[in-house]
Amino acid sequence: MSDQIKYLLDESAMPKDWYNLAADLPVPLPPVLHPGTLQPITGADLAPLFPMAIIQQEVSTERYIPIPEEVRQVFRQWRPTPLFRARVLEKALDTPAKIYYKYEGVSPAGSHKPNTAIPQAFYNKMEGVKRLTTETGAGQWGTSLSYAGSLFGLEVQVFQVRVSFNQKPYRRAVMETYGATCVASPSDLTESGRAILAKDPNHPGSLGIAISEAVELAVQRDDTKYALGSVLNHVLLHQTIIGQEALLQLAMAGDDPDVIVGCTGGGSNFAGIAFPFLGEQLRGGRSRRIVAVEPAACPSLTRGKYAYDFGDTAHLTPLTKMHTLGSTFTPPGFHAGGLRYHGMAPMISHIKELGLIEAVAYAQNPCFEAGVLFARAEGIVPAPEANHAVKGAIEEALRCKREGKSEVILFNLCGHGHFDMAAYNDYFAGKLSDQQYEESELAMALSGLPSVPDNIA
Amino acid sequence: MSDQIKYLLDESAMPKDWYNLAADLPVPLPPVLHPGTLQPITGADLAPLFPMAIIQQEVSTERYIPIPEEVRQVFRQWRPTPLFRARVLEKALDTPAKIYYKYEGVSPAGSHKPNTAIPQAFYNKMEGVKRLTTETGAGQWGTSLSYAGSLFGLEVQVFQVRVSFNQKPYRRAVMETYGATCVASPSDLTESGRAILAKDPNHPGSLGIAISEAVELAVQRDDTKYALGSVLNHVLLHQTIIGQEALLQLAMAGDDPDVIVGCTGGGSNFAGIAFPFLGEQLRGGRSRRIVAVEPAACPSLTRGKYAYDFGDTAHLTPLTKMHTLGSTFTPPGFHAGGLRYHGMAPMISHIKELGLIEAVAYAQNPCFEAGVLFARAEGIVPAPEANHAVKGAIEEALRCKREGKSEVILFNLCGHGHFDMAAYNDYFAGKLSDQQYEESELAMALSGLPSVPDNIA
Repeated sequence: MSDQIKYLLDESAMPKDWYNLAADLPVPLPPVLHPGTLQPITGADLAPLFPMAIIQQEVSTERYIPIPEEVRQVFRQWRPTPLFRARVLEKALDTPAKIYYKYEGVSPAGSHKPNTAIPQAFYNKMEGVKRLTTETGAGQWGTSLSYAGSLFGLEVQVFQVRVSFNQKPYRRAVMETYGATCVASPSDLTESGRAILAKDPNHPGSLGIAISEAVELAVQRDDTKYALGSVLNHVLLHQTIIGQEALLQLAMAGDDPDVIVGCTGGGSNFAGIAFPFLGEQLRGGRSRRIVAVEPAACPSLTRGKYAYDFGDTAHLTPLTKMHTLGSTFTPPGFHAGGLRYHGMAPMISHIKELGLIEAVAYAQNPCFEAGVLFARAEGIVPAPEANHAVKGAIEEALRCKREGKSEVILFNLCGHGHFDMAAYNDYFAGKLSDQQYEESELAMALSGLPSVPDNIA
Repeated sequence: MSDQIKYLLDESAMPKDWYNLAADLPVPLPPVLHPGTLQPITGADLAPLFPMAIIQQEVSTERYIPIPEEVRQVFRQWRPTPLFRARVLEKALDTPAKIYYKYEGVSPAGSHKPNTAIPQAFYNKMEGVKRLTTETGAGQWGTSLSYAGSLFGLEVQVFQVRVSFNQKPYRRAVMETYGATCVASPSDLTESGRAILAKDPNHPGSLGIAISEAVELAVQRDDTKYALGSVLNHVLLHQTIIGQEALLQLAMAGDDPDVIVGCTGGGSNFAGIAFPFLGEQLRGGRSRRIVAVEPAACPSLTRGKYAYDFGDTAHLTPLTKMHTLGSTFTPPGFHAGGLRYHGMAPMISHIKELGLIEAVAYAQNPCFEAGVLFARAEGIVPAPEANHAVKGAIEEALRCKREGKSEVILFNLCGHGHFDMAAYNDYFAGKLSDQQYEESELAMALSGLPSVPDNIA
């Protein structure tokens, strides 16, 4: 048995293209609807929000889309990222399974988010944009866009969900170090923020509200556009570099995964690791189990409804068909802030409906327990979001043990927890609740779903 | 001009030996003295504190000492670490100099400290030790030893300087995640701690006090030994893997440094980057400028006295000849906690006296300013300690600009600042003081230096 634990690609092997799952989907995605007309939108409808290069990627069905050389040049600072074999964890679990993890925490922001922040900033810069607005939950996305903005000379205005802003006081300092501005959302900088504060000055905020604020500010000025850190097709596309690399690295290791695991909030890191493998399958390759792990406190994929809904609370965004808990759903302040979104990426929802992936939800205490086990075995402290993927991978490894199967498990460790140690403090102090929902509670937010014409829904 | 920014060594090129500067010193180090007899100590005197393998390394004059394969196996998770060319920073400074930095923040603990924590834990484990005690300032060392302890199944008890314990509340969570125990020092777990608390219940602590506590606990039990994160010869030895790698990476880049810069607290990361280059010079190779950068608030190398002194406040440790501010010196609570030690590594003090290195001190605000400039240019937020090296490198690059010289500058970026964002918050809020000392203030602590026999001093 080889004792190798790390599989590194040479820089020259860094993928030159993103992989676009839309090219291989057996059924195309349902259309995106205009929030006013409820009819399919055009590229022109999106132009106030995004640069043309990104709008084209959003609707492209080309299988491979080139990564600009300027973007690859920035990626070289930390990409290709390592693939690790979790040998100590395997031993601790006494499992016959092999566990591999792709580690995205080596980026300057500590997560996978720069994979899309860098190209988004680049395309905006190329089209003359001066300022970007965005929302952030735990702060990883805001940090990453701030970092990208500093590299390309763009102003960045971040709206951070208030409960995370308060839980993670040092996140703002990172964004400010990169030269960005970060305010708690709901804020008094926007009409949508002021309207919510008027009703509840202590509103904890939500990603849906923060998106409303960022979109509202972006459409007001010609030199300003909006950037989203997950959910949309182009964001998922940008993350596929993770899986593209993992394909090459597993070939180096001489293994082929039977199960692929990722955590899902908006869906981007999960898409990043899973789509290139799923694409192989859709083109006639081997079939593999692909498992999305989400928090029980925000269970869009496992308990939400597959329906047209808004991406934000103030209903400024287009409508997409997705698994949703309702755009007015305000998830509790649990610690995996990056997974606290009412909807799921339309493309992930779509393949879930097609039966191409599975989904499972776990409460936060068992996820932290899994993260601590992982840290003691493998040395890396995972982000609270990533703990969901760790939990999912451990459950698969324990199943392999029960069934006596030596399957190969691959999961995405999407970020480290160095910014999130307050959450670990709370976990050790027994302060984390494992909130679940009655069906009736979920039904309430879903009762407000918009009605769309019969020929579309 | 090549646009390469990252120089990665293949795993197979990871150094197999540490480099021992003692082999090439033109004048041997002064002896270490027993705290009771004030006569040169023997290996047996150190046996209650350290395993034999480490005591042998402490006194070895072999040029190369093999890195155990079990240690290299753990290192493979993040080593060899990358060497970067700071092209964006060069452009921002408009300097003709080339700036390279070796980045040690990619380790699981986020700094260079695991380079010695792993071998120390390994050697202790090999000799049957069950428990390690240690001190920590900012928390990097405590984190690293906790991590190493978890990998080798050793209990770890950390005494953290109280002011850092309070400034960095999440550090303890990291150590606990790795399964270690961490208390604020002075603590009530030891006689030396209780004696200090009796006089001042709010004593801010110091590394000297924390060392006393850790040593006191270690000598009480046969199954317990002590681990130190800097200062001693074997610790500096373990860090030379940094410079050994940098030598190979600069050869890949086709460059040869004219100036090497590192920050100094106890001296270990500075030694790590500098000693392999200095060794080349001492064996007849090219002469280079080597610059140690220390905080003006704890200026042992620039303003301390070169004399025999204790390593700790309670005078439990042996005496070494070093640049010292006096073992009772309590530095203020500035934010580079890892540089807050009253003495300097004896080997670094020695080569400073021999004129082989230079030293300079900067106040903390200009160091944070340099760190923010670096973060916006290069994307990595440095630890407050590392900001001193960044400042030193920037000053050298600006000198090159004034002099119109295209020198090659190499510095060690010893860790990232993700755990230290409270310090950046304070910097942005204008809350950091730039404390300096009158000569009379420094003289006071130095008046308490121990007297040693004339034939030794």
